[in-house]
Amino acid sequence: MNESEWKKRLEKDQFARHNGIEMVDISPGYARVKMDIQPYHLNGVGIVHGGAIFTLADFAFAIAANSHEQIAVAININIAFMTAITDGTLYAEAKELSLNPKLGVYQVDVRTSDHALIASFQGMAYRKKSKH
Amino acid sequence: MNESEWKKRLEKDQFARHNGIEMVDISPGYARVKMDIQPYHLNGVGIVHGGAIFTLADFAFAIAANSHEQIAVAININIAFMTAITDGTLYAEAKELSLNPKLGVYQVDVRTSDHALIASFQGMAYRKKSKH
Amino acid sequence: MNESEWKKRLEKDQFARHNGIEMVDISPGYARVKMDIQPYHLNGVGIVHGGAIFTLADFAFAIAANSHEQIAVAININIAFMTAITDGTLYAEAKELSLNPKLGVYQVDVRTSDHALIASFQGMAYRKKSKH
Amino acid sequence: MNESEWKKRLEKDQFARHNGIEMVDISPGYARVKMDIQPYHLNGVGIVHGGAIFTLADFAFAIAANSHEQIAVAININIAFMTAITDGTLYAEAKELSLNPKLGVYQVDVRTSDHALIASFQGMAYRKKSKH
Repeated sequence: MNESEWKKRLEKDQFARHNGIEMVDISPGYARVKMDIQPYHLNGVGIVHGGAIFTLADFAFAIAANSHEQIAVAININIAFMTAITDGTLYAEAKELSLNPKLGVYQVDVRTSDHALIASFQGMAYRKKSKH
Repeated sequence: MNESEWKKRLEKDQFARHNGIEMVDISPGYARVKMDIQPYHLNGVGIVHGGAIFTLADFAFAIAANSHEQIAVAININIAFMTAITDGTLYAEAKELSLNPKLGVYQVDVRTSDHALIASFQGMAYRKKSKH
Repeated sequence: MNESEWKKRLEKDQFARHNGIEMVDISPGYARVKMDIQPYHLNGVGIVHGGAIFTLADFAFAIAANSHEQIAVAININIAFMTAITDGTLYAEAKELSLNPKLGVYQVDVRTSDHALIASFQGMAYRKKSKH
Repeated sequence: MNESEWKKRLEKDQFARHNGIEMVDISPGYARVKMDIQPYHLNGVGIVHGGAIFTLADFAFAIAANSHEQIAVAININIAFMTAITDGTLYAEAKELSLNPKLGVYQVDVRTSDHALIASFQGMAYRKKSKH
């Protein structure tokens, strides 16, 4: 899938759009996305909700996992939260750790614009026989 | 924290509200929440976004972990996705597996109204010295 | 695979035998195993090594995941450690949370003989086309 | 803790010794360990047991997490298994992703001597007030 096709799919991803997530960069096995923190990303104590950070990382993971011909679906994710954050822009960068015909594993780092590590996400995707 | 205090905090949780998540039930070490699936919960291939399912489960986890006196923050979460879903209502139910002065571990099951298991989430919270 | 076939495989599992792990009970999608704590299970500070607890739980997981016709291999595991332990007997009990033609998810609880929860393990297995 | 102190602790870690694990290199927030695969590392189908791979990675993690003044204990670990292996030598290398007064997060890669990635392990440690 090339970048313009991904942009079309991004436009169709209503949850990403609803939560203000944008694609920054994409190449095979790689993706970088961003989210400008808005008041609706905050939880009850005024920090960015873990669900918002997860969603940002998950979006980078999904793009990277689907950058090959086969359709890939998330089956397991682990996320460690390092630092609370209240404003600014967050970036998630996904890299492919391994790929075989059935499974792909991706590491996603979530960082501030100052490169502080906010969360470390590791995702596993199951690759279907069907193609994009 | 009692139920009316939690309802106040829920109203302040802008990310949960922005994504249509509501509290159903709460008791010490326990919470049940729900989400009526809306078009904005869907991803680019028309199924509920993993980030939406995670956010629902995370909200149940946060309520259960904060149902005691100490403030608790999420530090690590693992989620396994079992089944894709496109519509209806999802419920997340959080139960406390263990609690010591510093750490709490919670199991959260995400199910449809027919009790089909959509995702299994296990979360660990760090309990601060400060109280609510 | 029936219980006598599993006992044969257990005898062939040299790592389980090397570390003193024994099968207690098995049924489709379920397994219970045990480990009498020996000095060689301890780490440098005199408590049972996380690797020993993981290995016990992993063995229950592998038996439960392979209790159906298809060969299943571990692809991702998350483990939360709740309580340190120094002696006695540990039991791991694996239950099937979900199963489809390609993937199985299992919850394994590790407990003392007094039922204290020592660790909570969640494992995902990939099911091959080949049969036992 | 310096290298000679760590060597003493390693000698006391009976589980690591029982399973043939040796320290290769150590510096603050970092450790590299190795394991020559022996018949007793194999499972019932003749490949290295997941528990052996986990134990190797866990040992690198424990050394790195305890390379500072405070005692650190494992609280949560996620491991993804990429490739089955039957012989040779495995290396685990642990790097510190983040550190605050209470928690440390470590990434551990398990590789063959040809640098093939066998497993990716992410561990979280709780740092006690007590020192070594």
